[in-house]
Order: sequence, then structure tokens, then C-alpha cells
Amino acid sequence: MTRDDCLALDAQDPLAPLRAQFTIPPALIYLDGNSLGALPRATGARLRQVIDHEWGTDLIRSWNSAGWMELPRKVGDKIARLIGARPGEVIAADSTSVNLYKVLSAALLLQRANPGRRRIVSERSNFPTDLYIAESLARERGFDLVLAEAENIPALIDERLAVLMLTEVNYRSGALHDMAALALQARQAGALSVWDLAHSAGVLPLDLHAAQADFAIGCGYKYLNGGPGAPAFLWVHPRHLERMQHEDLWQPLAGWIGHAAPFEFTPHYVPAGGIARYQCGTPQILGLTALECGVDTVLAAEPFGGVPALRAKSLALTRLFARLVDECCADQGLSLVTPQDERRRGSQISLARDEGAYAIVQALIERGVIGDFRAPDVLRFGFAPLYTRFIDVWNAVEQLRQVLAGGFWREARFAERRAVT
Amino acid sequence: MTRDDCLALDAQDPLAPLRAQFTIPPALIYLDGNSLGALPRATGARLRQVIDHEWGTDLIRSWNSAGWMELPRKVGDKIARLIGARPGEVIAADSTSVNLYKVLSAALLLQRANPGRRRIVSERSNFPTDLYIAESLARERGFDLVLAEAENIPALIDERLAVLMLTEVNYRSGALHDMAALALQARQAGALSVWDLAHSAGVLPLDLHAAQADFAIGCGYKYLNGGPGAPAFLWVHPRHLERMQHEDLWQPLAGWIGHAAPFEFTPHYVPAGGIARYQCGTPQILGLTALECGVDTVLAAEPFGGVPALRAKSLALTRLFARLVDECCADQGLSLVTPQDERRRGSQISLARDEGAYAIVQALIERGVIGDFRAPDVLRFGFAPLYTRFIDVWNAVEQLRQVLAGGFWREARFAERRAVT
Repeated sequence: MTRDDCLALDAQDPLAPLRAQFTIPPALIYLDGNSLGALPRATGARLRQVIDHEWGTDLIRSWNSAGWMELPRKVGDKIARLIGARPGEVIAADSTSVNLYKVLSAALLLQRANPGRRRIVSERSNFPTDLYIAESLARERGFDLVLAEAENIPALIDERLAVLMLTEVNYRSGALHDMAALALQARQAGALSVWDLAHSAGVLPLDLHAAQADFAIGCGYKYLNGGPGAPAFLWVHPRHLERMQHEDLWQPLAGWIGHAAPFEFTPHYVPAGGIARYQCGTPQILGLTALECGVDTVLAAEPFGGVPALRAKSLALTRLFARLVDECCADQGLSLVTPQDERRRGSQISLARDEGAYAIVQALIERGVIGDFRAPDVLRFGFAPLYTRFIDVWNAVEQLRQVLAGGFWREARFAERRAVT
Repeated sequence: MTRDDCLALDAQDPLAPLRAQFTIPPALIYLDGNSLGALPRATGARLRQVIDHEWGTDLIRSWNSAGWMELPRKVGDKIARLIGARPGEVIAADSTSVNLYKVLSAALLLQRANPGRRRIVSERSNFPTDLYIAESLARERGFDLVLAEAENIPALIDERLAVLMLTEVNYRSGALHDMAALALQARQAGALSVWDLAHSAGVLPLDLHAAQADFAIGCGYKYLNGGPGAPAFLWVHPRHLERMQHEDLWQPLAGWIGHAAPFEFTPHYVPAGGIARYQCGTPQILGLTALECGVDTVLAAEPFGGVPALRAKSLALTRLFARLVDECCADQGLSLVTPQDERRRGSQISLARDEGAYAIVQALIERGVIGDFRAPDVLRFGFAPLYTRFIDVWNAVEQLRQVLAGGFWREARFAERRAVT
């Protein structure tokens, strides 16, 4: 596999035109779209319109005239197309952490009639915010949070399980759970399943209805390209939306935008019907606007085969990266963390190295190859198929080879650790 | 009082130059800054910089290099200067509703050692989201939410009170509580006080430390001019920040950004010290950027006398409005809802009318005078002293006079009610 082979792969790539939707600095090899998606070209102009015209000129009237009140559901409906949900089942609002609190709380409420089910089961290496929110709710509601390695999770799906809470793709390893199988097993065992799609939405074909999952949440600023700290999303299976019409089944973040009639300003909370009750405070219009532009970049792939085509390219990219690392960086102490089995792989490749993982990532960043480090020893590379090219993969591995072969990462300035999301 | 008198007041107004900070459509008389603050001129350019340079070019590196991680506290420190708080005591994050959930939950936790104190007392006409969040937490934690008219609240501050939760300025009436007196009374009675400063921050001199309040929250998109759905803010008195170092005193929204070491990715939650634990998910950078620009427009008043000068102008504006309504719209069925006593008045004037309040507001909007309607019978006019002129007051009352005298509001097209925040 040569550099020219990679250029040829790009020339043949039917998804290649989608990259033009983004502004990516020409000299940069950006393999961190799983942390912060790239900037869509449309976002700046659309935000200018919202700021100058909708806010600056129309002011308060835009809550009606510009559809601001509907934006959480409008953006939610677009995201629904990417995750196998139906219109009216998804909202975009708040953060992933806050949304997880809402849905996990709802799931625990639904299980309160089953006093034998006191367990929330999750993966020990799940993204920390998921574990922290679950830990908090477990304390508050008297449940036990049971953490296990991925391979031991099926054995924990039993009559004691209240809620199975998993992130489909592990943020650190890139390992992909079999959502359909686990959600089915949970359902057959009388438990509920809550899915974090942070590293899935936009890159993996998802079908929440086929999986019969119960709740899902996800992140707006990774593969959905919604911008730093973008609003997150939240899905609830309609069987629960109906069941939860019951007045007693509130969500704890009972803010006014989730009220059945917010503008009646009544003193008592009456939850809105449907997904609307999962809203809380006033919609964040600037963030939702940018998120909509980001989601549109993924929907733009529909004429090219949509998410399945993105998935095929993503696998081609990770396959190429793993192969080139194997060829060019052999005997450099790197090991593949991400599963070899592509059916078990998200849209990233994680490599582990006993020594210097942080410094190697820093040395790569200095050379214009942006990946990231995940404690304690992981070099993480994300492959956003909308804008990552095969030549980027080749160039990234070439830089990695040079950094390792030349020992450049040993320079002192690469040693200091700083916080990066 | 003539139109020329009003022009003369503007000519003499030392704060008049501050209006140039905003883009307000020339033909508009905007008396709704208490619902959505006007657009600062700086906001568009600053957001372009964040989008094009920080996000588009520097991408993930901006979490460090552009100070994104620090933005909630940086903006919080600026807001602290407006509310009598100290640096490090305020964060800007999430929505008002979500922040109220955090602090009210913390206040209830602090009172759990006092089983005799099971009451949360608030005002019956408090803003609904505050009541809903309190109702939700009261149910969850086994407290009683007791609602009363403002004048009956002091009598409810007794040994049964856990938390007094009030909005300093009533959204509907514009009536202003005596925060210092009520917070002191609550403290002396062994209770805690939680204050919503949504209609206070930026227009009322505030001194949370002098009042010895316990917790406060507030809105970013009203007098702080942070844009539609801007992040809200949250303050905690340092005595609780210290006390709550105790591992057991979590806030329920235990997201990763409130963790002591978010980037260690440890499986168990350890709350950060200080105000940082009141963060939850990833900071919303676009919203925080716009909020910072908005807060800067208020801080720009410091050389002109700061918030006390803004308060003096605000009172002059509401005084003028009430007087002109009295003179020009006598016998039109309007009554003043906002207290006559200026020490009890926020930065708005609310008028009630038995018939047609909604339609009158609509007719005024058509004539370029933007106020709003609050069910069931209130016409509400906000006076943001940073950009409202005395001539705006004169012109608004003249339009109100015409609408009432001519009966224009009776036209059918003004009758249909739509949702407006």
C-alpha cells in the first residue's frame, strides 16, 4: 500500500465531495472528529442570519416567527433519521449528562413496581459522565450500580436487573457493543435498556426501533458536527411516552418548557404529552442552530447511500490505518486496542503504548496530525467519514512512524499533560 | 411632560452613550428586554471569531488554547461583579431551570439533618419553572412546597422552614422582594434562602454577601443580553462550598465537568472543590461566548456609575411611563400592577386590563412597540436602562393611547393568542 494507492482510493471515493461541506485547515490532518466535529461551511452564515436578523431585528417575535420554540423538535426530527427513530420521538436539548439524568431517572421510575430489580448494570470503562450520573441516581433512588467488563455483561442480565445502561461505542477503545442483541436480552429479561450514542450517531447505521431499545441519548458535537458544547439529543421509545402520560411519571427536571401549557403560567406542573416533556429550560437557540447545520452535513450523505455508505467508508479508513500502522510502526511497542473484528469496531482506532502515549500524541499534534490521548496509555484516532480522506490516513501514519522512529516524542516539551476533552 | 421634555431627558442622560453598544432597529420601541435582551454589536463579530478561528481552525486544541474549559468560570466571574459575589463563586452553565434543580437540591441536602424542617416556601405567583422544579424536588425528597402571597411569606419563616425560594422581582407584576430582610429572617430562623435573580441581574444593585443569601441563580438572556436561550448562572455562598467539600454532599447532576479530575476518566464520581462541582456537561461554547458579550455591555456601565446608575435610570423610566399612562390613558380601564413604591419595583411596569390585554399588546407590536402579554390580563413593559430612551417611553405611551382611544385592538386579527416567551 503506497501513498499513490491512497490518492487513488480518494479519487474513487463516491463520498469524497462531502468533504467540501467543511472548512478544514489545508495543512491539518484532523483525526479527532470523535471529540469535536469539524466546522461546516454553512454554520457561520446561518448563525449570522439568526443573530443579525432573528435576534437583532425581530427580537422576541422570533420565538414564533422564526420557529425558535420548535427548534428542539425540528432538530430532533432530523437526528431521528440517523438513529432509526420516528418524527416526534427525539428532542435536541441540554447536555448529554443532563439528558442521561432525565432518561435514566424515567427508566428507574418505570421499574419501581419491581422491587426485586435494584441493579443498574453498565460497563466499567463506560464514559465517566455516564457512570457518574448513574452513580448519583443509584444513590438517590436506592439502586445498585454494577460495573463489569464488556464480556461479562450478558451474564448480568437477569431478574435483578432494572436498567442496562451502555454506550454503544466505547470512547476509549472504540469497541462496539451488539446493541440489538443486548437490548433484546434485556427486554426478554424484563429489564430496560438505555443507550448512549455519543460515538455512534452519524457514523453507524442505527435502528432503535428494530433493537426495541427503551431510551437513548447522544452527543451533538462529535460526528454530528454541532460545535463545541452543542446541545445533546434524547430519544424515548413511544411505548414509554404513552405509558408516561400518567401524571405520576414525571421527569425530575420538570422545567417550564416540558409543561403541557408553558404559556398558561399555571402554578402546578402538568407534563406535556410525548417527547416534549423531556425538555426543561428555554431552548438554547444559538447552539441548536449550529447543531442543525451539523446534522445537515450528515443528512447530505443520503443521496450517496446515507449512513450505511458512511459506515463502509469509516471501516475502510480504520482498516487502512490499522494495516499501515502494522506495516510502518512494527516493533515500536504499539498495540491495537480497538477490536480487529470490524463488526465490533466503531469509527476510531485506539492504540496503546506502555510509555509515552501522551507525548507521542503531542508530538503528532505539533506535526499537524490531531488525534488525542486517553488516560492512561491510549492514542486515539477518530475517522469521520464525511471529511477524512485516505491520504490523511497515509500521512498520519507516516508522521507517527517518524515520531516513533526518530524518538521525537522524548523531547521534554511534549511531556506536560494538559486537559483536552 | 411633553415629547420635547423627554428628548431633553435623553440629551442630559449620562448613560445615553451605552445604547450604541446595541443594534436596535431604528423604528422599534423595544420594551421587552426583560424577556429577551437586545443584540450587542460585539456579539456577531466575536462569535465569528470563535467559529472561524477557534472552532474552524484550532479545533479541539481550543479547549486549552482558547480557554474554552475556563469559560463557565470566566463568565461567572464577570457576572459576580453584578450581583455582589466574589471571583470563583459563580459559574455560567445550563439553564435557569437546571441550575435551580442543582442549588435547591443542595439546599435540601443541607437541611436533611433537620427532620422538623420539611417546608419549601415560595410565592404563589413565582415564575412557573421555579415552582415546577421545586414541586418536583419536594415530591422526590419528601418535602412540602408551600405557596403563599408575597405579604404572607414572612409569617411562614419559622422552625418548619427548610428553604425559602423566591424570585427577587416577580416576572408578572414587577414587584420586588426585600431580599436582605427576607434572607436575614430566614437565616435567623435556621432556614436557607435560594434566590432567582432572573429579573434582577444587570438592573438592580445586588449584594448577595451582604444579604447573606445561601444560593442564587439567574437568567442570561434578559438584562444580561446573552441571546435567546443563553446559559444561566449559579452562585453558592462560600460557607456552603466549604461545607459541601464533604464527599457525601453531591449535587445530583453529577456530570464529568463537575468532577475533581475530569480528564483522569476515573469510574467513580469525586466532586470538584468550590463552585466547579456545579458544572455538569461539556460547556456550551457558542452560548457562553454570546453571554460574555452581553455581560460586557452591563460592565461597560461601570465608568458611568455601574448598576446603581442603571437602577436610577430604570426608576426614572418606569416613573415616567407610569406617569404618562396615568395622564394619557386615564379612564381606559388600565390599572397599575407594579407597586407604586419604587423601593418595591423592578425594572418593568405591568398594567392590567379586564378586557383585551392580549389584543392590545398585539396592536402595539404591529405599531412597533414591543411589550408582552402575561396571562390572564397583564400588559408587561420592561425598561432595560442600557438602551431604553426617555423618548421611547413617550412614543410607547402615545401608541398605547391611540390603540385604546381608537379601539384598534378590537380588530379580529389581534385576538388569536400565540406562545411568546
